[in-house]
Amino acid sequence: MSDGGLPAPEQRGDQRVAPALVRYELLHVDASTGARRGRLHTPHGTIETPVFMPVGTLGSVKGVAPDDLGTLGAGIILGNTYHLMLRPGEALIGALGGLHRFISWDGALLTDSGGFQVYSLAEMRKITEEGATFQSHVDGSKHALTPERSVEIQEVLGADVIMAFDECPPALSERPYMEASMARTTRWLHRCVKAWHRQRSSLFGIVQGGLYEDLRKRHAEEVCAVDLPGYALGGFAVGEEPAQMHAGVAHSAALLPKDKPRYLMGVGMPLDLVTCVGAGIDLFDCVLPTRNARNGLLFTSEGRLILKNARYTRDERPLDPACACYTCRTFSRAYLRHLFNAQEVVVNRLTTIHNLYFFLALMAEARKAIEGDRYAGFVKDFLARPQTPP
Amino acid sequence: MSDGGLPAPEQRGDQRVAPALVRYELLHVDASTGARRGRLHTPHGTIETPVFMPVGTLGSVKGVAPDDLGTLGAGIILGNTYHLMLRPGEALIGALGGLHRFISWDGALLTDSGGFQVYSLAEMRKITEEGATFQSHVDGSKHALTPERSVEIQEVLGADVIMAFDECPPALSERPYMEASMARTTRWLHRCVKAWHRQRSSLFGIVQGGLYEDLRKRHAEEVCAVDLPGYALGGFAVGEEPAQMHAGVAHSAALLPKDKPRYLMGVGMPLDLVTCVGAGIDLFDCVLPTRNARNGLLFTSEGRLILKNARYTRDERPLDPACACYTCRTFSRAYLRHLFNAQEVVVNRLTTIHNLYFFLALMAEARKAIEGDRYAGFVKDFLARPQTPP
Repeated sequence: MSDGGLPAPEQRGDQRVAPALVRYELLHVDASTGARRGRLHTPHGTIETPVFMPVGTLGSVKGVAPDDLGTLGAGIILGNTYHLMLRPGEALIGALGGLHRFISWDGALLTDSGGFQVYSLAEMRKITEEGATFQSHVDGSKHALTPERSVEIQEVLGADVIMAFDECPPALSERPYMEASMARTTRWLHRCVKAWHRQRSSLFGIVQGGLYEDLRKRHAEEVCAVDLPGYALGGFAVGEEPAQMHAGVAHSAALLPKDKPRYLMGVGMPLDLVTCVGAGIDLFDCVLPTRNARNGLLFTSEGRLILKNARYTRDERPLDPACACYTCRTFSRAYLRHLFNAQEVVVNRLTTIHNLYFFLALMAEARKAIEGDRYAGFVKDFLARPQTPP
Repeated sequence: MSDGGLPAPEQRGDQRVAPALVRYELLHVDASTGARRGRLHTPHGTIETPVFMPVGTLGSVKGVAPDDLGTLGAGIILGNTYHLMLRPGEALIGALGGLHRFISWDGALLTDSGGFQVYSLAEMRKITEEGATFQSHVDGSKHALTPERSVEIQEVLGADVIMAFDECPPALSERPYMEASMARTTRWLHRCVKAWHRQRSSLFGIVQGGLYEDLRKRHAEEVCAVDLPGYALGGFAVGEEPAQMHAGVAHSAALLPKDKPRYLMGVGMPLDLVTCVGAGIDLFDCVLPTRNARNGLLFTSEGRLILKNARYTRDERPLDPACACYTCRTFSRAYLRHLFNAQEVVVNRLTTIHNLYFFLALMAEARKAIEGDRYAGFVKDFLARPQTPP
């Protein structure tokens, strides 16, 4: 490192010593639901589960810096392989010491494989047995992602948890397409495992199969036959109704090994989280709290609050009277609405702090309820909450 | 206040008791320059001068919230009468307890009169002896500002310092126009004083006259003949060369009473601040540090840094190796450049923190130099700094 540079990681308190691979510790299962209270031990700290992981697409959880994430108590965040390989490129991040160091985050990090974004964002994509070729949605440049390349990029980024490169078909896909896609995802998983170095990054496998219960069962058996530090459910919240998703997750989660962490990818709404914790899910991620915050949609204990609504023009109350976040301790709805309507840049940080606090606090409450064997009551109370603030 | 609202100001530590009007205390004059070390006592805290005041146009210092301003040590910020009367309107802010309470700021506040923005931003403006009529640049709605109305709005907002409503001609205006404008500003000042209630807001007068030394002298005599808690110099940094401005400020500052605070409005670059402190100016405001931050232009001890420059692509150093702000303690140029190029919203906060820290720290250094009777050397050292980072 050149003179005058930032302190090296070991001088910045980034000196935690832990086993290279993550390890799940099951502490307790709720007496009347499948909800699990556990811990994910990572090289960058121990995460109390179930947990919500804020999404840091381009190396930044949009709207908030690491100091805010620390205050919020976020222990693990996501990075996005597709976005980071395009901007600024994994080579640059690798040369500067990896993603943790690049973004100055000393908590745990998980990167996805890039597969989902290739399907949802990239242009001119072509999927073959080898992998995917596509054009960047940013500048049209051509790129390829294969199982090997995805693992290589993720190992260069150096996240604590990396994800297998999979194909992610819509949940409502026709059965023959789903079966063929699933089989390919299994073949790709074996290629990922072969490419994986089992060093600082722990590879999680992904179970697909849409809403076909027998396919989910078959794919879970194929994927879990590979001994991995963790397993994920993919292909939920991609077009199906919430009730279908909840039933599918309940069925699928029970197919996963009890001694490994279970990650439900890209889900979701607070109701989804509360429901799927009850099905035995440990890890969640979703852009909803951060994206909705920037669009002025706030999650509160009284339901969803639309900030631009004229009824809040003179409202001196905080966004959520039951919330203890910086935003709610400090600002009125009237002021935040003014900032939002005037497009003042600071409002993004303030609303994001609130929404992330809401999601993280909801999971903390869930953990307590599991510890007390009262998770069913917690779900019932949650369902009785109002839909919109009074 | 309704149930569940934010705590009242007195419960938020906003209970400082001080004389209603601000008072300037001159502590020391540098031995070989006109630089003054003083204190501005306000109902919301004592400000060590000379000081830079961040601009909070619409009730928010763009990019940063009060917590960041507190960490930065900002003791006084600006609000903007023109912007706030349009959005959200002074009636709303007044009904919610005033600007301090509305924006949750318990430091000192200064509002300008709105005059400058009417000239620089508003559409279809018409200036008469009565005042100004104009259309909002936001939605075309019609408004009027007079000396009486400006004082009324500012007293409703309730800032600690409010400014007289003046006409602000370009510094290079023709002499006859300048003389007529000045005379009108004097008549308007007397109307402002008549409208002013001398309660929680302290009215400052504004001396105009452009670059005409005799007109500045005449106007300073007219304005300072009115006993006010402070005086400002207007009409600088509106088109003239920096050297002309520095000479004009040096001449004009000396015309102001020694026992009152001297405020140079809308100035400016770090060099301008350092120079004009030497002329005896106590208060500065400018949008430069915050606006340039959002445009990726950073002020550093090594000169101005353009963040998008490709030379910083792999640069692990902080923006300014000599800076102790959160941004410089935490992030590399390479990461900040990535965030800026990807238009990640968080970068606005990080660059704004740095630029404000630079301006506030520069003034803190200036205050120390004045205390040590070494201000001339401080200016000399400042002028010897490099223009661009190595």
